[in-house]
Amino acid sequence: MSQDIQTKAINTIRVLAADIVAKANSGHPGAPMGMAPAAHAVYTQMKFNPKNPHWINRDRFVLSNGHACALLYTLLHLFGYDLTMDDLKSFRQINSKTPGHPEVGIPGVEVTTGPLGQGISNAVGLAIAQANFAATYNKPGYTLSDNYTYCFFGDGCMMEGVASEAMSLAGHLQLGNLIAFYDDNKISIDGSTEVAFTEDVCGRLEKYGWDIFEVPDADTDVAAISEAIAKAKKTNKPSCIRIRTTIGYGSLNAGSHSVHGAPLKKDDIIQLKEKWGFDPEKSFVVPQEVYDFYHKISEAGAAAEAEWNKLFEAYQKEFPKEGAELARRLRGELPEGWQNVLPTYQPGDAAVASRKLSEVCLGKLQAVLPELVGGSADLTPSNLTRWSGAIDFQPESTGLGNYSGKYLRFGVREHGMGAIINGISAYGANYKSFGATFLNFVSYASGALRLSALSHHPVIWVATHDSIGLGEDGPTHQPIETLAHFRAIPNLMVWRPADGNETSAAYIKAISSTKTPSVLALSRQNLPQLSGSSVEKALKGGYVVHEVDNAKLILVATGSEVSLSIDAAKLLAEKGIPTAVVSIPDFFTFDQQPADYKLSVLPDGVPIMSVEVMATSGWAKYAHAHFGLNRFGASGKTADVYKFFDFTPEGVAKRGEQTFEFFKGKNLISPLQTPF
Amino acid sequence: MSQDIQTKAINTIRVLAADIVAKANSGHPGAPMGMAPAAHAVYTQMKFNPKNPHWINRDRFVLSNGHACALLYTLLHLFGYDLTMDDLKSFRQINSKTPGHPEVGIPGVEVTTGPLGQGISNAVGLAIAQANFAATYNKPGYTLSDNYTYCFFGDGCMMEGVASEAMSLAGHLQLGNLIAFYDDNKISIDGSTEVAFTEDVCGRLEKYGWDIFEVPDADTDVAAISEAIAKAKKTNKPSCIRIRTTIGYGSLNAGSHSVHGAPLKKDDIIQLKEKWGFDPEKSFVVPQEVYDFYHKISEAGAAAEAEWNKLFEAYQKEFPKEGAELARRLRGELPEGWQNVLPTYQPGDAAVASRKLSEVCLGKLQAVLPELVGGSADLTPSNLTRWSGAIDFQPESTGLGNYSGKYLRFGVREHGMGAIINGISAYGANYKSFGATFLNFVSYASGALRLSALSHHPVIWVATHDSIGLGEDGPTHQPIETLAHFRAIPNLMVWRPADGNETSAAYIKAISSTKTPSVLALSRQNLPQLSGSSVEKALKGGYVVHEVDNAKLILVATGSEVSLSIDAAKLLAEKGIPTAVVSIPDFFTFDQQPADYKLSVLPDGVPIMSVEVMATSGWAKYAHAHFGLNRFGASGKTADVYKFFDFTPEGVAKRGEQTFEFFKGKNLISPLQTPF
Repeated sequence: MSQDIQTKAINTIRVLAADIVAKANSGHPGAPMGMAPAAHAVYTQMKFNPKNPHWINRDRFVLSNGHACALLYTLLHLFGYDLTMDDLKSFRQINSKTPGHPEVGIPGVEVTTGPLGQGISNAVGLAIAQANFAATYNKPGYTLSDNYTYCFFGDGCMMEGVASEAMSLAGHLQLGNLIAFYDDNKISIDGSTEVAFTEDVCGRLEKYGWDIFEVPDADTDVAAISEAIAKAKKTNKPSCIRIRTTIGYGSLNAGSHSVHGAPLKKDDIIQLKEKWGFDPEKSFVVPQEVYDFYHKISEAGAAAEAEWNKLFEAYQKEFPKEGAELARRLRGELPEGWQNVLPTYQPGDAAVASRKLSEVCLGKLQAVLPELVGGSADLTPSNLTRWSGAIDFQPESTGLGNYSGKYLRFGVREHGMGAIINGISAYGANYKSFGATFLNFVSYASGALRLSALSHHPVIWVATHDSIGLGEDGPTHQPIETLAHFRAIPNLMVWRPADGNETSAAYIKAISSTKTPSVLALSRQNLPQLSGSSVEKALKGGYVVHEVDNAKLILVATGSEVSLSIDAAKLLAEKGIPTAVVSIPDFFTFDQQPADYKLSVLPDGVPIMSVEVMATSGWAKYAHAHFGLNRFGASGKTADVYKFFDFTPEGVAKRGEQTFEFFKGKNLISPLQTPF
Repeated sequence: MSQDIQTKAINTIRVLAADIVAKANSGHPGAPMGMAPAAHAVYTQMKFNPKNPHWINRDRFVLSNGHACALLYTLLHLFGYDLTMDDLKSFRQINSKTPGHPEVGIPGVEVTTGPLGQGISNAVGLAIAQANFAATYNKPGYTLSDNYTYCFFGDGCMMEGVASEAMSLAGHLQLGNLIAFYDDNKISIDGSTEVAFTEDVCGRLEKYGWDIFEVPDADTDVAAISEAIAKAKKTNKPSCIRIRTTIGYGSLNAGSHSVHGAPLKKDDIIQLKEKWGFDPEKSFVVPQEVYDFYHKISEAGAAAEAEWNKLFEAYQKEFPKEGAELARRLRGELPEGWQNVLPTYQPGDAAVASRKLSEVCLGKLQAVLPELVGGSADLTPSNLTRWSGAIDFQPESTGLGNYSGKYLRFGVREHGMGAIINGISAYGANYKSFGATFLNFVSYASGALRLSALSHHPVIWVATHDSIGLGEDGPTHQPIETLAHFRAIPNLMVWRPADGNETSAAYIKAISSTKTPSVLALSRQNLPQLSGSSVEKALKGGYVVHEVDNAKLILVATGSEVSLSIDAAKLLAEKGIPTAVVSIPDFFTFDQQPADYKLSVLPDGVPIMSVEVMATSGWAKYAHAHFGLNRFGASGKTADVYKFFDFTPEGVAKRGEQTFEFFKGKNLISPLQTPF
């Protein structure tokens, strides 16, 4: 590699990043300018094909400090991804392909980053997926999978707990395919990292089980960076390459906080261009030899993909079973009839906790879906997520499993788990990843959950102990605001099944989803099998579970409150108020049904009361009155706790009667009817 | 200390904890039995008075592994806190004083724990408060404050990111007054910690700047534990004493996962009692000499408090200014007229971003409130939380501040920050603690925020960049579900002020709150001073900000959408639809107003449309129709983003007109009218 073209290329990245931020008059030029040499070193030895950003054996690159995205967009443009110079010029403008932080959907962007700590944790997930994929499909002579996951992160990411969780697990899992770069520039928004962050970062990573490599001058010493990468590739641990960089290298204010989050001044950019032999009068200029140089790398990547395609063809002949399975996964298809393995239930069947119903579903599904991987945040015996005969995903040296294992032991790391399952999902190959904890502690992972939804990762949360029904653990563990919170997140299914058929329906929708994540809220306590439920009905997200003629009142409920509402409806009928019951196990799915169907479920002219043992917020789109719990719960036996809050057939019936009386004679329209 | 009584006392703790869990048939006996010697060692050298659990200079004890609360309740009972044997017998029963996890409000419980990682992070806050308190009030010869904070934590806490964040900061801050015990019992719910947690925990803590002490046999070697405590008290760093314990020590299943979360079997308890000289036929028995022994410690604590009271009396004479201030703080009172320092605004005043209005409030308040301490999670220049002349809370050796400083540099550690400000609030002395970040990233701290509300810590979140109005940073940073989430949390104020007067009102309510935390959602962009606002009106949480005669439509809005709605109301008036505008800066406060006042603001007979640029969930309690944003935002200039989503006067007016037309002729009742 000629030194000249290398320097020119790196300086092109820096100048372009400065131009991008200056034109937008918004953004972060400092980190891109400081990290340009490392980015150059990484990308020039990576394997990828910009013409097919989804090639399964590409190396992955994650920019965990997503605010430095001017760097990433510049690289993607220079290497020939579908990101034009005009796209770079519309950085951070409405409807552009270059938003303020990198988002999934932009060609070459692997995961959405910006919220700090997420990217490096996604990278752990990408590395787990690669290790599992390779262990599952590689054969002697057929190395179908050997890609690396590279990640840049800064001090901000390292201060975040989510990163601590994921990086500790990465160390435990000995993910040698993960190579991260710590941009140790000593600057964060509050100024010097000396004000809050004086721990020994790399020392800590070593204690997690990482290998550390040092590049003391990453502003200019590209060879040292490349050498560190070569070494990192050889270890059996995750690697962190600490690069000492100067934020805003080249700027008159290099090394200072002022270049972090604001554009460079005009004269600063001029001196930069003059210093590095660019025309100071011109912006957004790339020397043709830089394009040529980078495009050669991309062409080599395209050739590697072509080679891989040949290898995979041969593989399919030699290993027809695995080959067909893998080809299906790469097409993003599920095996034919997969959902038929899920159980259905009849009214006479035993009452079962929905966490237990979920266990049955997971057991059946994993047998037909090699792409189903996941586990629990140290609540396996409570979440009931580990199927009989499961192999743990563990390094063989532990004697506890191997990388072809599909069951993950996340430890008590909910937020890390959320970001990791996002990363596994982002790997491709149809991975269906799930994480499990108590519903209340999915909130610990709020930051990752909203990114699942924003980035269209169809991950699954197995969220058991879904209400005050968990009993003795008390208010610290009993969700109140949780469903209101999750239902308000766009593009998120929040299932709370009432029985076995609804649980099977929830899994059908969750597994077949390609763009929408799911939270499955599951009970600790037993739930009866309902006579009015079926998988087919539940797949609509909402339906009439207890029909009556000429209903004068409708109770609408979810989960454990559906059977309770049916019991209450019977009491109300005795009082002369014919009462129907509607189950809406998932708002998101129900909202997508045709208007006339929805209106047949929640019609005009009948008062509707919601029944759910948590915050009533959000229910008004389906009901006129709400019986819920707008306070924290209580510790006690499940039955006692329900009784304490009057969630009994009598308590529900009492409020149903009040609702009926209140709206008597009023000309009610369905809450579904809205002005716009 | 006689060895005999010591052993008897420790075994009493173990047997009692086993009895408690067995009677409840629910709970965790293993950790209490393993940690009993350490608990004994800590409590017998702590300074506290069970008759006055609020004495300000008491040593604090935090059980971060809150599931082991049978241990804590046992200790509190044995030492003479107001927790009877009957209370112990009703462990985990409805309405008992001994719920499934320790909650603030139980005498002797400092903070609510159970959600893992929170307690140790609260402990960091308690230690920060002590350091600040001592640096502020101690004088030569008058050591008013020298208490320690002790904390027990297990593997679960150490896996949680929130603990990593707080413990890293504790190391940076050199909190020598913090002594934590790591119960290294190698067991978590999934079995051995070998499956997920093989990092070098104490090595990591050392890299954070902690001192480590080891007790290889904490099952029996109480002297070694006491010695370690003595050493830990002498260092200028936070200390971690690693105690190797056997979970369920004494049980037939000691050391195994089976004693973690389930009661001991009957014959196991019998052999335990026989082995240790207790009557196997009897339960809940405490030898009188054990009571006597522990009560002596408590009496020494009471005497220490009496000494302290004398010292404080003398202090008040010698330092009348500080003495009076401190006496006021200890009474839990605010200085007279404190709220008069807050600014009021007139319609002619300049438009100002509410984050900037908040900056003015904080600057004024800190000058009169020595108890106001807080800071930002590395967003100081964006959150505008640091007042002119602020001193950073830092160890002097850093040269960056000192412990009397009131401004905290939290680093990018939102969850840790949330738990730390809870701990500061829990310290007492009227501490008013605040944390700051972007509104969207308060979600990273969901776990701590719900505990603020549950535990009645009146902490304050300064949450700027409160909507898509933050512009270019894009959807990763733009809150959508956030206010719906927070408003669904019981006992939480969620202020979104529309102008200067409302911002001052928000601070008045937040600072004067004694039991309810607050989130202040503040704009990045400028907001005009409204002609219809006043501090007095805003203190009601909701009011008519734009009155018209015979309103045919009401728009109800918060924050930046209030002025937008007023502009829309003017357009609607031109179209013949007289439209009033209501501002509801805080739902919680508005909900507490008298019914007739609320109904005067949102009366029957008029269609009401909510206007807020985020999820509409939760608005139905005030409005019949909703204009919001039930999708993720977009990256672009603020004005462009608002326009893209049609949040313009014309866009609001259009929907207002649709609402008016839709409900025309219908006999509408106010959404405030409900059946029950």
